[in-house]
Amino acid sequence: MYIHGYGERESERLLAQAASVVRLLHGDTRFPPGSRVLEVGCGTGAQTVSLAHNSPGAHIVAFDRSIASLARAIERVAAAGLANVEFLHADLLALPFDAESFDHVFVCFVLEHLSNPIAALRLVKQLLKPGGTVTVFEGDHGSAYFHPDSEIAHRAIACQVELQRRAGGNACIGRQLYPLLVTAGYDAPCVTPRVVYVDATSPALVDSFIRKTFTWMVAAVREEALAARIIDAATFDAGIRDLNRAAEPDGVFCYTFFKGVAVKPAQTSGGLQWP
Amino acid sequence: MYIHGYGERESERLLAQAASVVRLLHGDTRFPPGSRVLEVGCGTGAQTVSLAHNSPGAHIVAFDRSIASLARAIERVAAAGLANVEFLHADLLALPFDAESFDHVFVCFVLEHLSNPIAALRLVKQLLKPGGTVTVFEGDHGSAYFHPDSEIAHRAIACQVELQRRAGGNACIGRQLYPLLVTAGYDAPCVTPRVVYVDATSPALVDSFIRKTFTWMVAAVREEALAARIIDAATFDAGIRDLNRAAEPDGVFCYTFFKGVAVKPAQTSGGLQWP
Repeated sequence: MYIHGYGERESERLLAQAASVVRLLHGDTRFPPGSRVLEVGCGTGAQTVSLAHNSPGAHIVAFDRSIASLARAIERVAAAGLANVEFLHADLLALPFDAESFDHVFVCFVLEHLSNPIAALRLVKQLLKPGGTVTVFEGDHGSAYFHPDSEIAHRAIACQVELQRRAGGNACIGRQLYPLLVTAGYDAPCVTPRVVYVDATSPALVDSFIRKTFTWMVAAVREEALAARIIDAATFDAGIRDLNRAAEPDGVFCYTFFKGVAVKPAQTSGGLQWP
Repeated sequence: MYIHGYGERESERLLAQAASVVRLLHGDTRFPPGSRVLEVGCGTGAQTVSLAHNSPGAHIVAFDRSIASLARAIERVAAAGLANVEFLHADLLALPFDAESFDHVFVCFVLEHLSNPIAALRLVKQLLKPGGTVTVFEGDHGSAYFHPDSEIAHRAIACQVELQRRAGGNACIGRQLYPLLVTAGYDAPCVTPRVVYVDATSPALVDSFIRKTFTWMVAAVREEALAARIIDAATFDAGIRDLNRAAEPDGVFCYTFFKGVAVKPAQTSGGLQWP
């Protein structure tokens, strides 16, 4: 759920400020004391803080390929007073870890950016001990709807989806976690939707989620969408206005994230397979 | 979520057979012993059974304007061995009850069919004692998405939405429960989404919800949609095929219902108002 470039993961930073969303996403993710947990693509550490906070006895190893992001993640985790995270500058395709050296792997808002998410899940599986788990989080822009409804707002969202597609990603990957985990050879996949439902009874969420996370993220692709001639400026701006309209007192906004947990089979050849 | 005519509420009957969906919808709806609860538009009693079962000490008064539906509701409630329901043949616009004669009101899958749901909520409010609650359930067809995604499947769903609109209803009303309750003059509205997430780990739900509830309901408008020239037969049939595709082993289907609870203010002039 980030925009490429310098503003990278700014929307995630804002998202992480909405306490209720953090609880909704991460409240039930706990790893046991003594376990070694790998966070894939930690970015600026927005999720790392929740991960390390909720599993104080676990040893977290977090990596990212962007040095700038990693620097911010290190600052943020230190500012939160968390001492159970080790940071590493590395790329998923060339990780310096031994096979089967982690008890658990945590992958949050990463698969959406990859042209081959199944290959990434398979790579990660090699690093897991048999019986270890992978925990994956993704949003799904096709799950966004709101009141008042607006076809133009959906067209603005579609710009973000289309640009992410052209960059090799998939902004609607959340709904696919189950088949992705199965195809990558994991066992016992369990996917649960987490709906962010926002109306005026949660003013903080109206501001932090509707305006400063979701609409911000869509608005951020304006210049790129116009340059690519996917949409004209007037339509795009009207779409953004209609998205923010859902933040008015009679508005409602819904967005769904998906959490998937699955197990590395004891036998390398195992895992569910489609018939 | 029903089709008009003889098959009325057949999809609700099927929905009510999916135990996990019933728990998701009604599991947290309980009325205290001794309370008088009005069920508005009970139809064939699919929801009445859950309502009466979960609140065994409450006295339920259920009404519908269709005698045929009511007859089936009476049979169903008797077959379930429930003795706390009184049935009445009546119309919402001409109810034989005194003002402020109910502690709670329950309205499930009714507002979506009304051209003026706010007026209905106001009528119901007159029957409630001050401090009494209204509990409303609605689906939202705009919340349906699935994997593999299919533009044609969305066009088939849109036929159902359009026909319901022409009949004066709104198949996407679920997201609007909060503003509807506020506008009708209720206090303390609390709306919660209930997502039906279906993948192959729940084979019973794949069959009962994807195939026999949602797709069945969309497929049921085929002749009406073709007669109204909203869509051509080949496109519609392909859309239905694509909806059923989500019931294959690698498929995923999501649909969201909304539950809203709100309170009748102590003073008639009370209630939240938009600025």
